[in-house]
Amino acid sequence: MRPIDESTVPEWDADAEVVIAGYGVAGAAAAVAAAQQGAEVLVLERAGGWGGAAALSGGFIYLGGGTALQRACGYDDTPANMAAFLTAALGPGGDPHKIRLYSEGSPEHYDWLTGTCGVAFRPAFFGEPAWEAYGDEGLMYSGGENAHPFTAIADPAPRGHLPCAGPLTGAPNGEQGRGRLLMEPLVRTASRLGVTARYDTRVDGLVVAADGRVCGVRARSFGRTLHVRARRGVILTTGSFTYDEAMVGAHTPRLSGRPGAAVEEHDGISIRLGQALGAQVSHLDACEVAVGVDPQHLIRGIVVNAHGQRFINEDTYAGRIGQASLLHQGNGCWLVLDETGFEEADAATRAAEQLRTSPTVVAETPTELASAMGLPEGALESTLDLYNRHAEQGRDPVHHKAAAWLRPLKGPLGAVDLSPRTAGFALGGLTTDTEGRVLHVDGSPLPGLYAAGRATTGIATGGYASGASLGDGTFFGRRAGHEAARR
Amino acid sequence: MRPIDESTVPEWDADAEVVIAGYGVAGAAAAVAAAQQGAEVLVLERAGGWGGAAALSGGFIYLGGGTALQRACGYDDTPANMAAFLTAALGPGGDPHKIRLYSEGSPEHYDWLTGTCGVAFRPAFFGEPAWEAYGDEGLMYSGGENAHPFTAIADPAPRGHLPCAGPLTGAPNGEQGRGRLLMEPLVRTASRLGVTARYDTRVDGLVVAADGRVCGVRARSFGRTLHVRARRGVILTTGSFTYDEAMVGAHTPRLSGRPGAAVEEHDGISIRLGQALGAQVSHLDACEVAVGVDPQHLIRGIVVNAHGQRFINEDTYAGRIGQASLLHQGNGCWLVLDETGFEEADAATRAAEQLRTSPTVVAETPTELASAMGLPEGALESTLDLYNRHAEQGRDPVHHKAAAWLRPLKGPLGAVDLSPRTAGFALGGLTTDTEGRVLHVDGSPLPGLYAAGRATTGIATGGYASGASLGDGTFFGRRAGHEAARR
Repeated sequence: MRPIDESTVPEWDADAEVVIAGYGVAGAAAAVAAAQQGAEVLVLERAGGWGGAAALSGGFIYLGGGTALQRACGYDDTPANMAAFLTAALGPGGDPHKIRLYSEGSPEHYDWLTGTCGVAFRPAFFGEPAWEAYGDEGLMYSGGENAHPFTAIADPAPRGHLPCAGPLTGAPNGEQGRGRLLMEPLVRTASRLGVTARYDTRVDGLVVAADGRVCGVRARSFGRTLHVRARRGVILTTGSFTYDEAMVGAHTPRLSGRPGAAVEEHDGISIRLGQALGAQVSHLDACEVAVGVDPQHLIRGIVVNAHGQRFINEDTYAGRIGQASLLHQGNGCWLVLDETGFEEADAATRAAEQLRTSPTVVAETPTELASAMGLPEGALESTLDLYNRHAEQGRDPVHHKAAAWLRPLKGPLGAVDLSPRTAGFALGGLTTDTEGRVLHVDGSPLPGLYAAGRATTGIATGGYASGASLGDGTFFGRRAGHEAARR
Repeated sequence: MRPIDESTVPEWDADAEVVIAGYGVAGAAAAVAAAQQGAEVLVLERAGGWGGAAALSGGFIYLGGGTALQRACGYDDTPANMAAFLTAALGPGGDPHKIRLYSEGSPEHYDWLTGTCGVAFRPAFFGEPAWEAYGDEGLMYSGGENAHPFTAIADPAPRGHLPCAGPLTGAPNGEQGRGRLLMEPLVRTASRLGVTARYDTRVDGLVVAADGRVCGVRARSFGRTLHVRARRGVILTTGSFTYDEAMVGAHTPRLSGRPGAAVEEHDGISIRLGQALGAQVSHLDACEVAVGVDPQHLIRGIVVNAHGQRFINEDTYAGRIGQASLLHQGNGCWLVLDETGFEEADAATRAAEQLRTSPTVVAETPTELASAMGLPEGALESTLDLYNRHAEQGRDPVHHKAAAWLRPLKGPLGAVDLSPRTAGFALGGLTTDTEGRVLHVDGSPLPGLYAAGRATTGIATGGYASGASLGDGTFFGRRAGHEAARR
């Protein structure tokens, strides 16, 4: 892991202008952009094929500020509006330069994805509360933009862009995670531009020239050690540290044992390789946390903590509920619904084959339910009483769930234990500038070293929105590729 | 900030076996221990005199496991009992090796402080709810050991050890923070053992020999640059990064603009110097958060968040209330008390000249009070109703405040806005082993480099107890001094 002095490298086993570690979404975007600059690009991927966490994901790309897809679906958005949302919802601690650039560059980035890379999006808006669209609709809310408190901070605009099957994707839509519908065109585009890839090749060291510049990598491939020279730059894109128990324990211990939406390759090696050169890191405590319950159910019920208290509006982004539950409420949370609520939600999700959400415990009365849930005496009753009293008036002055979803919870009740259903991935990593250059703790760039994706701190430093990682991974990965090739 | 190659050092301006950066409590303990090993020790301190944050602090040292002071006050404690508390209350994410060693070594460390260093403690227990003892009592609860949920996890034992004026302290007791009564004997002991110090000397670089060993420091002193050779080792003890806005923004943004119990010298330079050599860091998000309200008031009232809900037992360590408020409840919290409560608490604190705690708003009824506080309609009323109903029965099944402090809140009410009263310091820093060696991200020690105090991650990685910083700063500072000198 310690930097390798170039003078100790026996010989270069391979050579390229730009060497990229990791062939997930950030690596693919970087590869395309570097190749567009005319650079010779070699991607080293630890797994047996390209894809990374992105290929298995839902495929959301968080874009806005007035993309062609937003306009085609009839939604207005501006970069300033988008930046206001990101600053409020994905912080605290966001980098204002990254947020501004990302918001302003979003429409063009969408055009690059569709035009240059051939990613397809169907111009249809999906409006149900859901983790993902049921069909191949291309646009949906994915971060709570249309819920309290963000409706008062920025004009609501959906920014979750979801790819569909297009001319460059082999898989028929729906057979696999839609992330593949993003990854496949990116990789095909990279190949078309001459990018080459080596698989089963795990980067585990950075080679540094006498002048301090990163000039290559060391890797293990099919049992032997390789040294690969990078004549212009090295780009680290091997993902988060979610699967490294030691790093999780040191930085975000509440996530320990709960990896989600990550892949086993997410061992934080890029972050540690950067740190070994004195790189700055940031927001290593931050994580995305999903809760494995369908939003159709969440939105119709109340979510309570181990004290029987509500703590959030249930119509917000479900990942926000997950983060609040795991990071701020001690993870002992429950969803409480009445029979009508379960029936309505089941009906809404059945056709779509979404997440099955069955009650962990059921009871005839709030007191019996609270007892079965192990909640303190009187607390759930008090919460339900206040909620129901307000819901009868179509109001939720305490947590501001929208009136459309308010209905007193009556009759037999069921509760879903959310504790075993929270899982997520780490958001923090190497501190990079807007061009993807890895920064030293003294604030200056480390020559020859670039990074992108979840190995870096991106636009989400506290909160999250679905699509932020594929979004900033492609956006800043592309900039890193461009910058590295330009040298 | 980048490592300085020894070959580029023009000449050594000074020389010692062990060079310590920072003359706060960790530096002083390291200096004494290194000198006890016979090493020639030079301490470089940025300020005009020794003391650091420790000298201005309340002087708590968190010790237990059966110290002589605990026994003299009639309290039983064991290392296992102490470790169980620390693991539960100061985590998540604590280093089990550090916690075990600290708990087991605590009684001997107390003897070292009193015997070798001449720190005095009066064997008297102070039992009032308070941030600090009113007189010169030597022992009190300082971490919520005697409150829910910790009473069920470990046998309650007070571990806040408070020094009093003794033969080695010039200041009469009570005139200054009791931290001085710890610092002064430590520094006198160091001086007696031959330790020398240079003031106005700010370390800003580490000098590294050809073999990779840290062999000195660069510093600025009275306007000029010095290079100081360290023949055995360098110990970094310049405190936390609480006053470095960039680091706070990158690691623990909720603390931004709220430094407390820290000094301006806490600029994180030790952490950044270590990082520039590839050092691992951990728990940089963690912080101690005090709330500037007297516990006599807190314990008699209810603390509610911006939703009008209670979230913690008000008889726990007040710093725990501060942490929960700022880090998990969005900092919009209030203390609500009735007239009787204010009168009782005022009476209890008046004689002691403790913190003045006056209501921000007052009202005749809960509804009027909630409105003046800007709370959502009905929420505070619901909370008070449930609390009072249970309090009448002498119970608090929701948050488990002890029966002795339960009384229905009735009649005119007052609320204290806690938002402007939260402040604290960062707990995370360089990752060290139990001997104070700074660890590289690959897990191996960085040769010649040691660290202690709040420049490092100590026993508090999430929660906090008063005395944890002076405690682990002296305990692991001492071990670092011993180890560096031993080489």
